[in-house]
Parts: sequence; C-alpha cells; structure tokens
Amino acid sequence: MTDNSNDPLVIFTPSGKRGRFPAGTPILSVARQLGVDLDSVCGGRGICSKCQITPSYGEFPKHGVTVRENALSEWNPVEERYKSKRGLIEGRRLGCQAQVQGDVVIDVPPESQVHKQVVRKRAEAREIIMDPATRLYYVEVAEPDMQNPQGDLERLLKALREQWSLENVIGGLRTMQGLQKALRDGEWKVTAAVYSDRNGTPSQIMRVWPGYYDGAIYGVAFDVGSTTIACHLCDLITGEVKASSGLMNPQIRFGEDLMSRVSYSMMNPGGAAEMTTAVRGAVNSLIGQVASEAMISTEDIVEGVFVGNPVMHHLLLGVDPVELGWAPFALATSDAMSLWAKEIEVSMHPDARLYVLPCIAGHVGADCAAVVLSESPHLQDEMMLVVDVGTNAEIVLGNRNKMLACSSPTGPAFEGAQISAGQRAAPGAIERVRIDPVTKEPRFQVIGCDHWSNEPAFVDLVGPAGVTGICGSGIIEAIAEMRMAGIVDEDGAIGSREAVGTARLIEDDRTWAYVLHDGRVGGGPLITVTQLDVRNIQLAKAALYSGARLLMDKMEIETVDRVVLAGAFGAHISPLHAMVLGMIPDCPLDKVSSAGNAAGTGARIALLNSAARREIEAVVRAIDKVETAVEPRFQEHFVSAIAIPHKTARYPNLDTQVTLPQVSFGGGSGGGEDGGRRRRRGRG
Amino acid sequence: MTDNSNDPLVIFTPSGKRGRFPAGTPILSVARQLGVDLDSVCGGRGICSKCQITPSYGEFPKHGVTVRENALSEWNPVEERYKSKRGLIEGRRLGCQAQVQGDVVIDVPPESQVHKQVVRKRAEAREIIMDPATRLYYVEVAEPDMQNPQGDLERLLKALREQWSLENVIGGLRTMQGLQKALRDGEWKVTAAVYSDRNGTPSQIMRVWPGYYDGAIYGVAFDVGSTTIACHLCDLITGEVKASSGLMNPQIRFGEDLMSRVSYSMMNPGGAAEMTTAVRGAVNSLIGQVASEAMISTEDIVEGVFVGNPVMHHLLLGVDPVELGWAPFALATSDAMSLWAKEIEVSMHPDARLYVLPCIAGHVGADCAAVVLSESPHLQDEMMLVVDVGTNAEIVLGNRNKMLACSSPTGPAFEGAQISAGQRAAPGAIERVRIDPVTKEPRFQVIGCDHWSNEPAFVDLVGPAGVTGICGSGIIEAIAEMRMAGIVDEDGAIGSREAVGTARLIEDDRTWAYVLHDGRVGGGPLITVTQLDVRNIQLAKAALYSGARLLMDKMEIETVDRVVLAGAFGAHISPLHAMVLGMIPDCPLDKVSSAGNAAGTGARIALLNSAARREIEAVVRAIDKVETAVEPRFQEHFVSAIAIPHKTARYPNLDTQVTLPQVSFGGGSGGGEDGGRRRRRGRG
Repeated sequence: MTDNSNDPLVIFTPSGKRGRFPAGTPILSVARQLGVDLDSVCGGRGICSKCQITPSYGEFPKHGVTVRENALSEWNPVEERYKSKRGLIEGRRLGCQAQVQGDVVIDVPPESQVHKQVVRKRAEAREIIMDPATRLYYVEVAEPDMQNPQGDLERLLKALREQWSLENVIGGLRTMQGLQKALRDGEWKVTAAVYSDRNGTPSQIMRVWPGYYDGAIYGVAFDVGSTTIACHLCDLITGEVKASSGLMNPQIRFGEDLMSRVSYSMMNPGGAAEMTTAVRGAVNSLIGQVASEAMISTEDIVEGVFVGNPVMHHLLLGVDPVELGWAPFALATSDAMSLWAKEIEVSMHPDARLYVLPCIAGHVGADCAAVVLSESPHLQDEMMLVVDVGTNAEIVLGNRNKMLACSSPTGPAFEGAQISAGQRAAPGAIERVRIDPVTKEPRFQVIGCDHWSNEPAFVDLVGPAGVTGICGSGIIEAIAEMRMAGIVDEDGAIGSREAVGTARLIEDDRTWAYVLHDGRVGGGPLITVTQLDVRNIQLAKAALYSGARLLMDKMEIETVDRVVLAGAFGAHISPLHAMVLGMIPDCPLDKVSSAGNAAGTGARIALLNSAARREIEAVVRAIDKVETAVEPRFQEHFVSAIAIPHKTARYPNLDTQVTLPQVSFGGGSGGGEDGGRRRRRGRG
Repeated sequence: MTDNSNDPLVIFTPSGKRGRFPAGTPILSVARQLGVDLDSVCGGRGICSKCQITPSYGEFPKHGVTVRENALSEWNPVEERYKSKRGLIEGRRLGCQAQVQGDVVIDVPPESQVHKQVVRKRAEAREIIMDPATRLYYVEVAEPDMQNPQGDLERLLKALREQWSLENVIGGLRTMQGLQKALRDGEWKVTAAVYSDRNGTPSQIMRVWPGYYDGAIYGVAFDVGSTTIACHLCDLITGEVKASSGLMNPQIRFGEDLMSRVSYSMMNPGGAAEMTTAVRGAVNSLIGQVASEAMISTEDIVEGVFVGNPVMHHLLLGVDPVELGWAPFALATSDAMSLWAKEIEVSMHPDARLYVLPCIAGHVGADCAAVVLSESPHLQDEMMLVVDVGTNAEIVLGNRNKMLACSSPTGPAFEGAQISAGQRAAPGAIERVRIDPVTKEPRFQVIGCDHWSNEPAFVDLVGPAGVTGICGSGIIEAIAEMRMAGIVDEDGAIGSREAVGTARLIEDDRTWAYVLHDGRVGGGPLITVTQLDVRNIQLAKAALYSGARLLMDKMEIETVDRVVLAGAFGAHISPLHAMVLGMIPDCPLDKVSSAGNAAGTGARIALLNSAARREIEAVVRAIDKVETAVEPRFQEHFVSAIAIPHKTARYPNLDTQVTLPQVSFGGGSGGGEDGGRRRRRGRG
C-alpha cells in the first residue's frame, strides 16, 4: 500500500477494504497487501483459478469513484486459455492476471474466499467459516544441484517456506518415499496437502501430487453415540457435505445403555477390546459407505474428527472404560487428542490425522463439547441452557462470561425404555399426542405418517396394527397432555375413571392407566400410559430439571434466556410439553429450540475450522464442572422436582398458550413419589 | 545459595562447586541449587538411590575447611532400609536423606552423575557424555477428583511438570491405554520413560510402570553398511554396551557393491522394495540377537539410531535409491529424520523412536556424518583429514573453523575386488607383507595367525594351503613394499626379472608378476601381485588422494595436521604403507591413526547423547560439499596422483622410516598410466 494519491484506488467488496496501488499491480497482490480474503492455491501462476474476481464498472458515488472500462489490464492469453479449457463466468477475471490500471471496484465472490462461510440450515446457528487444518499448496521446487546436495524433501520444504511462508513443516516418511517420483513427474512442480494443527507441533505434509492437483481432499466428522454412529464426509476446500451415513452402534449387543457396556467390560476379560473392535468396525464401514456414495477413494480422506460420550470416547480409543463405571469416574484423558488414523485402525489415507474433542467430565463427554461448539453459548450475552438428553443428560449453562456443566442420571425412560408401551423412535411409534381437555379423547401421530390418528387417511395408511408403541417424545407429550386435560394431578397420580370422567381410563394393577390406542380389534396392540410410566418419567424429568436447576443456583440466576435441546431426542421433543412437564426450567417458549444433531455439527465445525479446535479446548478448560452426585442441593431439587405443579407456580411464560386445570384426586390411588417408588420395587 | 557466612559450607568434588546452605538442607537439594550433576529418578523420595554421595571427613587445607564427624545429619531409617534391602557401599550416603549440619566435602561418584562419561577404548577419542533422549522420572500423581474431572493423563502430565519441570509433554495413545491400570497398581505413583527430542517438538511419554521402576531401558545403535550391518545394544542409563552383533547385509545377493544394487532397483520393478525388506529383516534379526544375548525383551528397547551410506539409508527407509544412481545424485532427504520404529517395521517397543543421522551429500552419507561425530574434527584446532574407505571413499577435511566433504570413486580394489588374488578380509587372507629390499624375498601374515610366514610355527599352523588370497590391506602393503624394494618403479611398472634381479618375478601376460606365495606344492594357490593389480590399486589410490587433495586446495592448505582412517578397511591399513603408496596426503606418521568402526561409534554417541544429534545436524549443515565429478581440478590431481613417486618429493615426514631406491625400468614392460589402462581394456 502506498500513500501516493495519484495511484489508482482499489476497493474490494464485500470487505470494503481499499487502498491505492501503482498501475500494473495484479489484483491478487493488491488483495494480499490489503488482507482481503482472496484464495489461491497456485500462488498467482494462472493455474488454479481460485482467485476469480468480478470488477464493476461505472459510477460508484458511495465509494466516490468512477470505474472506467480500462480500469484493469486487458483480458490476457492465460485467462483466455483458462476460459476455453475450464470455463469462466461472464464478467469474471483471474485476480493473478488482471492488473490495476485505474480506480476500480472489485467483488470477491464467495467461492473465491478461503474463509468462505458454510451454509447451515438453522438461521440462529453459528456460521461455519472455512479454515481447515489441511490445505493445498502448489509450489515450484528447485531442481537438485550437485554443488548443493540438499535432499528433494528439503527443497520442497524450502519452496513451501519461500512461496507460502509455511514454517516448521515436516515431511514424514511416506511423503519422502513418494516424493522423488512426484517431483520428476511434475517437472519440479507439485501440489502438497499440508496439515497444520497450530498448537505448537510442526505442520505435516500429508500428500504430494505431481503438478497442479485439481481434485478435492476430504475429511470425516463422526458422532459416535451409544445407539447410533453418524458420519459426514466433507469437502475440505468447499466445506460441502458430500455424503452422510449412520449405523446402529454394533456395541448394542454388549448392552443397550452405556453402563451395561461398562459392566460388560468389568465382567468379561477382553470385553473392552471386543467393544473397541466393534465400534472401529462400524466406523470403517461408515467411511466405506460415504466414500462410495461420494465416489471417492478412502485414501482421499486425509482428516477425521470424532466426538462421543466418555464411554464411547474411551472404547473408540481402545481404553477400558471401567473407571467410568464408579466414582470418581476418572477419565483416562480429558484433553483433546490428536493422533494418526492408523493408531486406531481407521481406514483412510495412511497418514491421515484424527482430532478428538476434549471431554468435559467423567459423564460429560466430547459429544457435549461438540454441542457447545455448535451452539456457542460462550459467544453470547444471553444465558443459554443446553441440554443433551440421553441415558445421561449432559447439561451446560452459560454465556460469554461463565460456563457451567454437569450430567444428570435421567435413566433410559426418555428413550422409551422403562415405559410399558415404550419403544425406540422408529416407524409406528407414537411421537405426537393431543388430548381434548373436555372429552379427554386422544389423537396422535406416529413416525412415518403425517396424518393425525383421527383423520380418515390415518386409518388407510397406518391402521390399528400399524401403531406399535410410544417413543420418548410421545410419552412426554402424552403425560403433559394428560396433565393439561386433568387426567394426571400435580403429584403425578392418574385419576380414577370416576374422578376424571372418561372411559379411556382402565384399571391396571391396582392403579389406573390411560388408553392411548386400542388396536386389538384390528390385530394391533393396546397402548396405555400406566401409573408406573408416569412415575418413571417423573423421575427422569426431575433428574434433568434438578441438574439444570443446580447449575442455575451455581450461576445465581432464577431464569435462563434461551434453552437449546440437543440430540436426536431433543430434535423431536415439543418445548411446550417439556415445559408443562417441568423437564426444563422456565423460559419464553419462543426461546426454546432444538439443535438437532448438534454434536455432529460440532464435529463438522472442528473438521472445517482448525481454530475452532483451539476455541473449544479453551472453553472446555474454562467450564466449571459440577458433579451432581456430591451436591446435596441436587437431591433437594430432585425431590421437589418430581411433582407436575400448576403452571402459575412454575410456568409464567406459558400463560398465553395453555391453562392447566386445578386437579387433585386425593392420595388414594398411589400419588407422590414414595407411592411410585414402592410400586416399582414391588414389581421389580 | 545464601550469603549468610554463618551457614555451613558445602564443597563438591570433582566439580569443585561450593556454596553455603542453611543446616538441614538435603545434599540433593544443595546439588540442584549449585548445578552439581547428581542423579535422581525418584525426586528425592529415598526410593531410587541414584543420588549416592560420599562425604569426606577431616582437614582439607586445599578447601580451607575442617569436616567434623557430625557434618551431616545422622544415618536415617530410609538409608538403613535401603542398605539392608539393596546394599550400599561403605561410606556412602543417600543425597536426598543426608542433610547439611556443618562444613562438608562431598564426592559425587561417577555412577551418581546423570551426565556420566562413557569410557571409550581409544585415548584420543572424544568422550561420550550421557545425555540420553529417553529418561526415567518417578512421580506421585494426584488422585482423581470428581470436583475437578481432569483425566488421569492430564494429572500425570501435571505431576511431570510440577515435580520435574517437564513442559510440553504428550501422552500418546498407548500410554493412555495402559495408564489407568498403572496408576492404580502403583497407588498413584508411577515411573514414566519420557523421550525428549529437544528440537521444538513435544516430548513423548514412551512407557509407564507402576511404582518405582528399578529396571533399565535400552537403545540400539546401527551402522547399516553395504557389506555388514552392525548393532550395539546400549543401556540408556549407564551408557554401557550390553551386547553387540553383526550380520552380512543380505542385500549382497542383489549386488556386491552399492551401484549394482541401485542398478538392480532400476532393472527390476519392485527391486527396491525387495531390498528394503531384506535390510529390515537383517535389522530385526540383529535386534533379536542382541536382546537375547542381554536377556531382555525387545519391548525394553525404546530408541534406535541408524547410520548408513545414502543408498543403504534410502533402502532402509523404503525409498527407491534410483536417483542416487545418476547425476545429480539427488537424495530424497538430506536432513536427519526422527520417526517411529514401527514406520519402518523395526521390532522394538511399539512406541519406540528412531533417529537417523543426516546425509552430507548424494555420495557422502549418514555413516560419514557419524564418523565426523565420533572423530569430531569440528571441535579441534588441528586440521584433520578423515577418510572412510569403501567402494566410495568419503572424505572430510576441516577443523573448528571450516569443514569440507567430498566422495571419491575409488572402486572396489581396496576391498580386494579387481585384484587377481584378491579376497575379502577373512581367515587365510594375506594382510601384512614385508619384502627384504636386498633379497627381494617376502614374508607375510594371514588373518587368523599371529606368526609371520617365515617362522616355523606358520607352516604348522597355516601351511601352504591355508593361505587363500590377499585382502585390501595386504595388497596395499605388498605394493608399497614392492616399491620400497625397487620391484616397482615410480610409474607403477613391475621390473623384469633381469632388471630387478629376483627369481620372485615371473612372466604374466606379457608383463611381470611378483610371487608372494607359491603354495602349489602343498596343494595351495599361487599368489602373485600382477601388473594389473598394481594398476588397479594405482587408480584407486589416485582417486582417494585426489579427493583429499581437492579438499586441501579448497581449504588452501598444503599439509594436514592429522589423518584418521575410518571403517573396517581403515582399521587394518598400515599408515606407513598407505603413505608410501600415496593414498593419503603427507602428514607426520604418528598423526595418522585408525578410528575403527567410527560410524558405529558415532551412532552410539547420538543414541546416548541427544545434544550430539543437534550438534551433528548443525555441523552437516555447515559442511561445504564438494562434488568431485564436476571439479576439473579433481581430474588433474587424479592424473598426477597415479604415479608412486620418490619419497623425497612427497614424503618428507617418512625420512626416518624408509628410503626409497631410485628405480626406473624404462618404458619397456608397460609402465605408466596408459599402459595399464590399455591392458585393462584388452582384458575386459
């Protein structure tokens, strides 16, 4: 940049950066000097076309300039050759070829920006800015010289240093083994993929192609859940998701939930190793699937990011999770890990690097860290409560000033286990329920059909036998609706047929059950919500609520500004019903949202943006970890959270949406916590 | 250290370091504050006994102190327990237990020094100071805490940081996998082996043992030669060589010399990979041998250092050496390499690290770098010429101010190839020759017998059939003695029987040959030195001499202060005869020495002292590499070095040892370079 006011003025959009540069300066060079984000892999040699820009001509009163037709140097043979071979959008120029001649306004289209933004579907979600750890660099390497017998590798490293300012790069054995051929095949020009972890360790050349490499490089983002393992294959240049796939976690055969898998490891010598083999097998099978869907070789995958709860994290890494099975729930490692894919037998490029997000605590895993990265409470002023509901609820509360986290033992009720008609979320499962407060008649939707059960099309499409059970979100809605219709009282007791006045109530083991669906005449099941179901959901929701409440105590706040429900369960839950039930603390209903698979998204962010890795590491270090098991207040909150109280006491923000009737059936049919507990024991 | 002159004075020997310390300070702590080299693995907990010291009592006029009986605190139960369990030399104390009470003189015995010196057999050789990359550290790790859910690994790293000031350490996957059990088995006390490469990369925990680990850790130093592969197993704590072994390089089946192996790779697809497999197989077999000899597990070997010429270096690392076969002889990599043992399929501890010394140039390898490290011209004022003689001679010239290196194509004559009766150095080969200058009668010694051939015992022990050929050092002595006896003239021509006057000369293909041994009556061979033998040695020695001479030109010197002959050949060569022949430049004879297997010693230095790795890397970078192939002066020197001139012209320093007769046989019998060359072509 020069102060000479006779030099042409160059203004970039959208950045607004501007400066005066001598006539003849290439636009790419101007962009670099101004710090404008304009991509280039070939370093301005007219090969890669990543530096495309669009000059604008005419009057720009806003900028105070007039751009004449000759503001840039003439269209040149390099651009002509590129256009005829590969095509160039009308009006575009190559930034490395077009030179400044007069005042000019230059637009950098998104695809020419290195740090381009990856579009996310949710409007409120944080942007993903491309800043991958692995990048391509085209270099011209000096030919060997007998007078100066440096190795080929050393001359490549010199070229990276001189042409790209890449310091502290190491070659690695595999690079060296293939380098001499690549250099000679490419006539001393090669493209190198360089991985920079940016945490003080040297950068690493992952791969070298002869000449200019015009292809893509890929990474995979994994969310290794107890039930499902999900994988996204991403283009590390564009950020695009090229393929996604999921699999049931094959460890399910060792135990449905986490603790039964930990027990399996305790009881069976070699059990942990078996489970490690199983999960790595699933990971490799998913990599094969996404690579085949995107029609690429698994060798083109140079990076992977993994998140998972602590038990899955340990099993994936080959660590026996036995210590997570008892207090003090000691993690083998809590920090983020950087390792070679081959160290955990993951099939990608042989030199591929993996990054595993940090764990927050013994029960709050790397998956929760990924949710934090995706939802970013630490970047906001609003006090955000993030709840990832599973067998354990992982709960984070905070804003840019302070972050707290805990886990709460909700048990598997929210996943449909411990519920009489409970089932996993699968076609045929009731997931939405409405109960008419006057007639007490229900209607519902099942997974796989958009019609309500009282619509004629439902009978045709699903029929009485097509309804198979209730999934987690269905049981939440059913019980909340039962409460709102006056079928359940504040203590969680289901009223008798006489008290409530509906034939939908049937006797069940000395208590009452509410019939949601009677498919028996059509060969289907009788689906009821039993007193025990209500008790189990009460215990689960009380655990969840009291975890959140404990964090609010520690934060010294009475309300939160925003609630985010993460995870597959959170994606399907109705915020209204969750609040009626008292699962989550009070919050304006429009400030309660679902983040979908936020853990998977967090993994994707860490894959596409290496600065985000340092960010989440710092955030996790700064999070205050609260251990519910040793907090007396957790027990107090838990006991008082078992009830399903009148909304005016706890849900002021629900005023406009629902009105709960004042109901009480007396103590007769087994209300209150103790009744439920006794019954459970009696049955067990 | 304090200035309080009332505090007791502590004086250490042999360092002479001294200071005043308050009564009650443990000697280990005093040593640390004074920077005295006193070992400790347990950090002063009375477990490891590495900090043993010997207090001296009485009057020390030299130091100006009187040491009273109560100068140290009383012998304590920790010392008593240690002595009864493991024994303690009389008069020794544990430095961590004995506290200062009065003025005292403390001797640190060699075995209590971390940086102890490893004894080398050669008096003039550089000392090896122990400073290994891998060291043991005993630590007490904090127990896990639910309130602060750091992982076990993070708490171990914290302990290393706090108790040993070890920063920037990483755990690695395997450490993490075994860590939880080790910590619990050791009741939160473990010994960690930590590898610190000290070149900006993080240190790495190699292995963790529960409690205090009382065993040793090992490293291997390899010299991978074209003909032989040699391995030393070293104790990384004491520096002791626990076992050594050597093997013929199995690549010999692909070609005797380096260039024929490069050709094999060029001609056979997959040939380089075959040779890589062969050399790695030999390396693993040697590791097995030395481990078994020392009765340790190969898993106890945590480090390896490799040196070798460029072709062996490339083949070991899995790089096709084809580029080394033609100009410009481009190395795949010239810098030192640090890699995992498993990357090149070497069987030691699964996380073992390897270090490969840098190559100096396309024909001057990591073996030569190791020779430099062993002989250390770069640390001396004297101008030293180091010659490693093999198929190629690798030549280094320099001192602390400047270093030069080149290689010279001597061909295999010095190894006994291209010599009519030549053979490898093996029992039965003539290795020493003397010729009576008057009678022209020879006497000789063969490998495997200490008697000269003219002694009666020789006939009994060896006999006419026990003499099988001439090895490299034998042919040098034979020709030098023939020159000194007037059998060969300055041009290298063997005189006729008439001219020289000895029946030892026989006709051979229109020239004369000198009979060294006629074993035919006893069923043995006729061993002669032919004119062609003389010509081939002349070419080889001229190449060697002119390489050295070229470096002297570049250095602008006429004489060198010291000549070191490295390698197996250098170990057996007679400096006197080498100088008579004109192999090496003029130098006082007592300044010519053999360094034995200096390459193997250099590898051992780099294994035991990690600072030496940085040292040799810096030295190699600073060496000026001279390529003989493109230097016109090399050809000039070569042509004029073919002759074997009169000593007064070239060997002023030999005056007292030998007197060469003035001999000339005229041009008749094929003297001079051209004659020899013509004959060779005629025969080939």
